[in-house]
Amino acid sequence: MAERITPRSESYSDWYVDIVLQAKLADYSPVKGCMVIRPRGYALWEHMQRAIDDMFKATGHVNAYFPLLIPESFIQREADHVEGFAPELAVVTHGGGEQLEEPLVVRPTSETIIWSMYKKWIQSYRDLPLLINQWANVMRWEKRTRLFLRTTEFLWQEGHTAHATAEEAREETLRMLEVYRRFAEDYMAMPVLTGLKTDAEKFAGAVETYSIEAMMQDRRALQSGTSHFLGQNFAKAFDVTFQTAEGSLDHVWASSWGVSTRLVGALIMTHSDDKGLVAPPRLAPTQVVTIPIFKNKNKTEVLAYADKLHRRLAERFRAEYDPDDANSPGWKFSEWEMLGVPVRVEVGPRDMENNTVVLARRDTGEKQSVDVEEAPEAVAALLEEIQSSLFARAKAFREENTREIDDYDELKAFFEADGGFAIAPWDGSPETEAQVKEETKATIRVLPEGNEKQAEGRTAIVSGKPARHMAVFAKAY
Amino acid sequence: MAERITPRSESYSDWYVDIVLQAKLADYSPVKGCMVIRPRGYALWEHMQRAIDDMFKATGHVNAYFPLLIPESFIQREADHVEGFAPELAVVTHGGGEQLEEPLVVRPTSETIIWSMYKKWIQSYRDLPLLINQWANVMRWEKRTRLFLRTTEFLWQEGHTAHATAEEAREETLRMLEVYRRFAEDYMAMPVLTGLKTDAEKFAGAVETYSIEAMMQDRRALQSGTSHFLGQNFAKAFDVTFQTAEGSLDHVWASSWGVSTRLVGALIMTHSDDKGLVAPPRLAPTQVVTIPIFKNKNKTEVLAYADKLHRRLAERFRAEYDPDDANSPGWKFSEWEMLGVPVRVEVGPRDMENNTVVLARRDTGEKQSVDVEEAPEAVAALLEEIQSSLFARAKAFREENTREIDDYDELKAFFEADGGFAIAPWDGSPETEAQVKEETKATIRVLPEGNEKQAEGRTAIVSGKPARHMAVFAKAY
Repeated sequence: MAERITPRSESYSDWYVDIVLQAKLADYSPVKGCMVIRPRGYALWEHMQRAIDDMFKATGHVNAYFPLLIPESFIQREADHVEGFAPELAVVTHGGGEQLEEPLVVRPTSETIIWSMYKKWIQSYRDLPLLINQWANVMRWEKRTRLFLRTTEFLWQEGHTAHATAEEAREETLRMLEVYRRFAEDYMAMPVLTGLKTDAEKFAGAVETYSIEAMMQDRRALQSGTSHFLGQNFAKAFDVTFQTAEGSLDHVWASSWGVSTRLVGALIMTHSDDKGLVAPPRLAPTQVVTIPIFKNKNKTEVLAYADKLHRRLAERFRAEYDPDDANSPGWKFSEWEMLGVPVRVEVGPRDMENNTVVLARRDTGEKQSVDVEEAPEAVAALLEEIQSSLFARAKAFREENTREIDDYDELKAFFEADGGFAIAPWDGSPETEAQVKEETKATIRVLPEGNEKQAEGRTAIVSGKPARHMAVFAKAY
Repeated sequence: MAERITPRSESYSDWYVDIVLQAKLADYSPVKGCMVIRPRGYALWEHMQRAIDDMFKATGHVNAYFPLLIPESFIQREADHVEGFAPELAVVTHGGGEQLEEPLVVRPTSETIIWSMYKKWIQSYRDLPLLINQWANVMRWEKRTRLFLRTTEFLWQEGHTAHATAEEAREETLRMLEVYRRFAEDYMAMPVLTGLKTDAEKFAGAVETYSIEAMMQDRRALQSGTSHFLGQNFAKAFDVTFQTAEGSLDHVWASSWGVSTRLVGALIMTHSDDKGLVAPPRLAPTQVVTIPIFKNKNKTEVLAYADKLHRRLAERFRAEYDPDDANSPGWKFSEWEMLGVPVRVEVGPRDMENNTVVLARRDTGEKQSVDVEEAPEAVAALLEEIQSSLFARAKAFREENTREIDDYDELKAFFEADGGFAIAPWDGSPETEAQVKEETKATIRVLPEGNEKQAEGRTAIVSGKPARHMAVFAKAY
């Protein structure tokens, strides 16, 4: 119920944790940094998985599964990769009661084990492209964790593709970035910016990293998915060559890309309010709940009416029914609001007499009375309306909190106040990027497509040199 | 192609490995005992998962996710459990560059971590039953491994349910056994025996273990799924009590149940032949492949005809199309037979003239010519026919190789010859069970329902005492 949730105005981070715990999305586990994903949280992830997997298959990808444990020496083959991941590894040193000859690391990501297999599978251009995705758990030893947003173990998908040319691998990298953008916007109702990461922020082992970035309600950015052009880095580290159509030998070109259970955290933080979770209808574990309102004298009739309605709704939607009489209707309304169910159907004796039902929207609280026969159609329309309205609201919020800023003092003031996304001219140097981070805590989230053109003729913040990029700065999770 | 596969008559185990590797279902990995599940093998698993998951949801279960790593001390809480699993554990001793205070084991199964959470979630009878399933990877350090059948890491589902009474937990145990039986028979076309395991063969920590057992083509048994009644063992180990409806305090009753990627091995060994994989249509990664047969002079017309047909088939089935002209039709027929595609559609110039196509069955090799307009309908009917025919053939094979045997010398002779399933009267003692295992290598696979009744008045093998059970003996994987 609402009183168990800390209001956002009081503490945004307590509010977030309260929703995760009270809406039973996840729980702390006895293993440091690892969470338990409870059924309602897992259902969100399952619906995400289904939608994303369908999009992967529609773009020609297949799923496979590679080992959890990776020989430690594999991680060390790609120089940047080991530098990035070595501090975060969990290491298995014993198996079957004996010390292992070579320690095995729990995968933090699977480029190395997968490229060791690609060496076996790829000989000729006829074996390419290889478009494989894996749904798996991975582990990165984190000092500071947050439910869903940053946990030692998390669930994700990781795509690993192999191509005959750099151009094809780059196209794939951008194709999957676009898949992520569409998923975030069409299913999560979460608007995202897309673009290139700076070298300071890119994946350990990538030539280029692209990401989708969303604005949370505290105006901070959440990196929600990444797509990497890996060049020939892993092909060279694992000596994966192929015979080209012309008969010469070349190293294979690669991409990798992933989204994780972090998306569940992104979803929660984008839409929820002080009453609890607000879930976009396409992903909501329960889309509609029917709550009968009755007194003892009319209980049988109302329950029969409500039960019949619920059954009709359940044929078409993910529907629940709450006839429990241990709690008052008001208590139940709060409870289902906390759980984030997009549409509540109320049916009482008056509705029964009039052959109507009341539909209440979770996002706005608005109610409407509709003819009972038309209830399924009305619920369907309302779910669509909520889905697009959530997106529009989140997009308006991001736009309200995005500013183009040319002056560094103004940028500092922006991040000292409420902050948000600042689009500012940047000279492209790692030094000015580092200085801004040091002085404002804001980092460059992305360099959006076409930003170089927009930077022409402008003066970069910090250095006063000619700008090379228009960069999106924000404090980030 | 067929010549790459060792015939069953020569070496059954080489035949199995050849199919797994040549049909690209799985591959050996650089990590000892761990396999890579390749896209065609993973597609089989995905279709299994989807069907099983739907059956779980239809029986009221929800999915969740618990941590991969379990504190070593948790495994030790239940005496039988630690005894069973301690020799098989993989142990993480280091994380984030530091030695851990307490080692963490990679889950071999999740009873302990899950019951540590159930203690937090269960207070009252109102919280019961709790019907949770998890899809996950687990690890058991195995000395001898075989692709799919026994690997150090494998994928599985594990259901963990909590109930207010022993009776309800027992009902659940049997309900899920029946779900497994239905899945094996209706989807895998694999007949199974169901029944109780003896104490010697039961799960470490269970009061009772039930299993489904299938007969492979080498007449050995493969345990294909288990369902355990756990009594209050884990509730007591983790002190999980609840307030009953009457207000008293009781320990919770439990079941757990699982099937794994071992099922992929079971499917392969049940149906395949010397030409390669035979996959039941409901689970086959590809259900129908269209192969155009053409010469240079009619290539364009035949390809147009075949492509159009393929598109129609793809609307309704998991369909592939192989117009590649680098290989002969005969070569392609062999290749797709090896991959286990149930129906091959051949279209050549004569078919085009007559508005027909040829359908070839993978299981029997039979061909039929059908009108092109009716092809999708004919393929649908043929897939159904193949599905039931595979089941009937496997069932007949099991029946031919099942014998009721009353005499111990005869039992020994049975297992010295071809073997199979022997149903024999048993006195119920662990000593005679162990002696049979020692002397014949056969173990008791299950005690089928009603076996005590059938044993009445009969004399047990080995001891000559009055029989208490009719037990199914077999050599097993």
